[in-house]
Amino acid sequence: MEDSTVMVIFQPSGSRGEVPKGINIIEASRLLGVDIEALCGEKKVCGKCVVRIEEGHFEKYNIQSAMDHVSPWQEEEAKFINDERRKKGFRLACVAKINSDILVFVPEESRAGKQVVSKAARDIKIDLNPAVKVYTIQLEKPSFEDKVGDFERLCNGLQREHGLCDLTIDIVALRKLPSILRQGNWEVTVSVWNDKEIIRTRPGRHDCSYGVAIDVGTTTCAAYLCNLQTMEVIETSSLMIPQCKYGEDVMARITFHMTTPDGLQRMSDDIIEGVNDLISKVVASTHPEKKKVKKKKGEDGPDEYVEVIEEGKSYLRLAMEDIEDITIGFNTAMHHILLGLNPEYVGLAPFPPVIHHSMDIKARDLKIGINDSSYIFVLPNEAGFVGGDNVGVLIAEEPYKHDEVQLIIDIGTNGELVLGNRHKLISSSCATGPAMEGAQLAFGMRAAPGAIERIEIDPVTHEVDYKVIGREATRKFSKPEDMKAKGICGSGILDVLAELYSSGVITKTGVFNKKALKKNPRFRKNPDTRSPEFVLAWKEESSIGKDIVITQKDVRQIQLAKGALYAGCKLMMKRMGVDKVDKVKIAGAFGTHVDRTKALVMGLFPDCEVESIYGIGNAAGDGCRAALLNVQKRVEANWCSRNVEYLELTVEPTFEKDFMEAMQLPHMTDEFPHLEGVVAEYILKQGPKGPVMPETGK
Amino acid sequence: MEDSTVMVIFQPSGSRGEVPKGINIIEASRLLGVDIEALCGEKKVCGKCVVRIEEGHFEKYNIQSAMDHVSPWQEEEAKFINDERRKKGFRLACVAKINSDILVFVPEESRAGKQVVSKAARDIKIDLNPAVKVYTIQLEKPSFEDKVGDFERLCNGLQREHGLCDLTIDIVALRKLPSILRQGNWEVTVSVWNDKEIIRTRPGRHDCSYGVAIDVGTTTCAAYLCNLQTMEVIETSSLMIPQCKYGEDVMARITFHMTTPDGLQRMSDDIIEGVNDLISKVVASTHPEKKKVKKKKGEDGPDEYVEVIEEGKSYLRLAMEDIEDITIGFNTAMHHILLGLNPEYVGLAPFPPVIHHSMDIKARDLKIGINDSSYIFVLPNEAGFVGGDNVGVLIAEEPYKHDEVQLIIDIGTNGELVLGNRHKLISSSCATGPAMEGAQLAFGMRAAPGAIERIEIDPVTHEVDYKVIGREATRKFSKPEDMKAKGICGSGILDVLAELYSSGVITKTGVFNKKALKKNPRFRKNPDTRSPEFVLAWKEESSIGKDIVITQKDVRQIQLAKGALYAGCKLMMKRMGVDKVDKVKIAGAFGTHVDRTKALVMGLFPDCEVESIYGIGNAAGDGCRAALLNVQKRVEANWCSRNVEYLELTVEPTFEKDFMEAMQLPHMTDEFPHLEGVVAEYILKQGPKGPVMPETGK
Repeated sequence: MEDSTVMVIFQPSGSRGEVPKGINIIEASRLLGVDIEALCGEKKVCGKCVVRIEEGHFEKYNIQSAMDHVSPWQEEEAKFINDERRKKGFRLACVAKINSDILVFVPEESRAGKQVVSKAARDIKIDLNPAVKVYTIQLEKPSFEDKVGDFERLCNGLQREHGLCDLTIDIVALRKLPSILRQGNWEVTVSVWNDKEIIRTRPGRHDCSYGVAIDVGTTTCAAYLCNLQTMEVIETSSLMIPQCKYGEDVMARITFHMTTPDGLQRMSDDIIEGVNDLISKVVASTHPEKKKVKKKKGEDGPDEYVEVIEEGKSYLRLAMEDIEDITIGFNTAMHHILLGLNPEYVGLAPFPPVIHHSMDIKARDLKIGINDSSYIFVLPNEAGFVGGDNVGVLIAEEPYKHDEVQLIIDIGTNGELVLGNRHKLISSSCATGPAMEGAQLAFGMRAAPGAIERIEIDPVTHEVDYKVIGREATRKFSKPEDMKAKGICGSGILDVLAELYSSGVITKTGVFNKKALKKNPRFRKNPDTRSPEFVLAWKEESSIGKDIVITQKDVRQIQLAKGALYAGCKLMMKRMGVDKVDKVKIAGAFGTHVDRTKALVMGLFPDCEVESIYGIGNAAGDGCRAALLNVQKRVEANWCSRNVEYLELTVEPTFEKDFMEAMQLPHMTDEFPHLEGVVAEYILKQGPKGPVMPETGK
Repeated sequence: MEDSTVMVIFQPSGSRGEVPKGINIIEASRLLGVDIEALCGEKKVCGKCVVRIEEGHFEKYNIQSAMDHVSPWQEEEAKFINDERRKKGFRLACVAKINSDILVFVPEESRAGKQVVSKAARDIKIDLNPAVKVYTIQLEKPSFEDKVGDFERLCNGLQREHGLCDLTIDIVALRKLPSILRQGNWEVTVSVWNDKEIIRTRPGRHDCSYGVAIDVGTTTCAAYLCNLQTMEVIETSSLMIPQCKYGEDVMARITFHMTTPDGLQRMSDDIIEGVNDLISKVVASTHPEKKKVKKKKGEDGPDEYVEVIEEGKSYLRLAMEDIEDITIGFNTAMHHILLGLNPEYVGLAPFPPVIHHSMDIKARDLKIGINDSSYIFVLPNEAGFVGGDNVGVLIAEEPYKHDEVQLIIDIGTNGELVLGNRHKLISSSCATGPAMEGAQLAFGMRAAPGAIERIEIDPVTHEVDYKVIGREATRKFSKPEDMKAKGICGSGILDVLAELYSSGVITKTGVFNKKALKKNPRFRKNPDTRSPEFVLAWKEESSIGKDIVITQKDVRQIQLAKGALYAGCKLMMKRMGVDKVDKVKIAGAFGTHVDRTKALVMGLFPDCEVESIYGIGNAAGDGCRAALLNVQKRVEANWCSRNVEYLELTVEPTFEKDFMEAMQLPHMTDEFPHLEGVVAEYILKQGPKGPVMPETGK
């Protein structure tokens, strides 16, 4: 007898589950809480719900996925999916019915409920000194008196008027030179890279040039389109890395490389495709939006589009070739994967990377589709998995220019820590895992509408009040059906843990307090897994047709993350010889949204004045931007990468013990007596009922 | 009614003519004096006679050529021509019958009677200082005490042991580094380019590295495979440039670019394919020859080969990736075409090239298939059409290091002249045309067996005695049928002209002396063209079934060439302010074979002591080799290219008049009284009959 359910896994979100056989992909996405755009309501006419069926055997998920695991191609799809994309496995999610286990990739453009937390650019102080500078000069045309060649004519002019000497020119730029000089009637704008090499010429006068700073994380990738003359950030954009299908963390991807003959190449190609998509996206943002022209009845032919020009707005209308410089930073593993460098040894003690130093690589050598002759500046690596993204954080925050001891925490899929001041810098990497960002939890999701972001649990009744993104009123003041909750996002995680603990739902070791929860319907054993879970939102309050719960495993995940983080910080402080840090800076979306007090109380990191905790946004991206706009920052980056002492936590003798201890909730206040007040205040805030201290209270 | 003849043009020789419809290509090649290898005697079993039918309309020849202009594909051909080559138009010449006009390209390997004059390497003094140097070091493997990355570990070692600082590494070389270090147990040999960039690593110790110097002419291309450590020339090879089909001279190719949308790309691709073939050829020479294993009766399957190892000989067995450096020199037009630079303006007054300066271009950017990370050093251009090949001549001959005034003549398809000493250098380019090398004459051919290379004409009877390459005895001492003459090669040209003149067959203006030739059967009007011609060898003495003649047009071609050369030299001397040169050096095959006295007498170049005339072989190639083996020579090359004063002959006011005068035979001895003796002596040598002075004698 055949199974009546099939396994579906959606990427890049990672959401997965059994769904009834025969339903279409849109229906499955609803059941699993995945956002797919479906404007026309599955009438097969909007073409927004394009997804890709991934082929192959996905060991991690133990499923075999193939294009013929879904219902056959239908004619309606051809309107939206051309032959080339069809061959790659693209389908309309409202058309394709699921007949067998599949892995579905939802492209960025098909995702509904776009991520709310964008990696917006912060104002940071950068001196303008870009690697790519532009010069306009008017040359004399060749004559018998002055018959010197085109390139030398240009160089003579640049030396005379701008003092540039010994320039070279890239062969691709040289190929275009003769026609550009004549096209502009010998007035020409020249882009010079590092005062060394001509990488572009344009006819006539141009005052601007553009670059993109790219911060590649393990799961997301952010790009900042900048004007290299004014430093203005013209557009910021981010996307999920298409590469997640090879493994959600870097070790899984290294394993993929080691077990798959062309694995590294495939991963590299995919991430480069992602980078190209991201650049296209910021470039496209400089054009007006396009709207499809409605066809008259009976009219045939290809679709036509018109530009929707906003009044009073001017458009730069950049092309890909207008991007003349790129800086890019990532952790060491992603660095190796993108560049096609064997990442195997970074994953093996003593974890030597293939290279630390920054690299200038021709964009064309990486198949990155910007101005042909341009270079990509790849930020240097520190050590272990701590790569150019952390160097970016360093050159953005410059702890080495201050006396105060700063602790900088960059929580992402891979957590990176820096501690130091002008005398010493220490970095390390710790497996916070994606837990802190809400991934890998049973109902974890991105910060999008429907995500629970704040929560309060009554210490006596254990009733739950919560707030979702996209709705002002909390559960208490809403009708259940208005909540439309979908899951828990990163910024809700710490709240959940703090509330679970302070309301007595879990004990300080992180175990559900069975005694206190007796007879509470919110506490139950999962009918399938028989594992305990606590209901945060009931089925009728959700838009996914199920109770939203937090499981024992979820609690463990969060505990592990916070324990690793705390223990890591403590070991670094020990190495640095300090008992206390002067400032704690938290990078990333988490840092922007975290409740500083709760973070302290829950022992996410060692004690510190609450006022000295700062969210610093996407500091890695800021560092990439600084390197884009100021070539001195590139020198500084290399200095940093070689002057940070890297601490490999896992080989420190006390790490395991420290880690275990740090998993407790909240961390023992007796170690940090000054925190007692903070903790007490927090607990008091809970109201007159006071906290139930589950393990000691009766 | 259909024509019973069809037009066939063979490339790269350029031989053409009408042949009976329906004959096969081998038969046509015999009629037109083209050498195609046919070992099996057209039994369709040796597979040596592979040719390619070129497709398209060939305006210059006004013919339309297509694959279906020959008889259909036959099964026998599949044994020698795979599907890919079949699609490109390859056929067996003994199989394909000609049904309509075609253009046939004869690949190097199918040409019988290989060229005798090879561009062999001369002994020239070069100091060893190659751009690519190799270093072997033993590194410590990574440990927790020393966990620095692979690249930095290597750099630290190179700095410590060899004093190399601030090295970078090419991304492709870096990709291979981790496995190479571990494969060689941390002993590694590193190739460093210009003390700057690591371009290759090999596991373990290696003492050698290899490079190729390439001299690209308009019609032939020569390569020298050199050991970069010992300077030894391991192999020399040359081939005809496949590009001739786009035009036999550079102006024709520039026109092809201007009139054909992707003309430049096609020409560039073809010449790069040629360069790659040439490199493969010298690389293959380091392996033993391979012999096909004879199949047993009834045995099937693909052909098998065994190596034929010569006793006592050791083989280097190089691979393409063992070539780590290339230097290449060519005239400006070929330089532009190979690099994909618009050659249009080099052909238009005031003839500015796109670039003068040398370039270092990644081999992969030019799709040249050597070691991935290596550079091609492109020699700098002088001006006009005088390019890196002439710079090569300069750095090989170094006239700028001497007081004596040297005149260096490089006769090729495009003639290049240099005059100068340590105080001043002047260069110019003159259209000697290919006439001096025997091309474009009615019966011109390469220096191969059957080519007339020496000739004597009796001044009274006008009987002709001659010698062909490949046969010791001259016509006088041979049976007619033993001569097997095919045509006239470059080294025979000057003889023909000198003998025609001194025997009174032509007058000093180059016109056939009708009076003197009256009743001589050798002198006649061509039955088709009605143009006068003189028979050098009768049909029965030839292997091509026709009389071999020299036509009035041929004489004019040679006169034009020598006139241009002489007038050019004179103008340069005027500019230099000298009446006489101290040395005349003649580069190229022509220089090696020319009769110095005849050259002086015929007024090929201004007067000079006969003893001061030197043949210097392929000096352009020697210069490329010098630049390959000594990086200082590259600096010198750039100095030369910018310090040679280029004289554009065609715009000199007296050029036309000088040219006209110089076309006379021999040049007026009253201008060069000291030459009277040489001329008289030469004429006297003709024997007691004495010369008939056709225009004054009765």
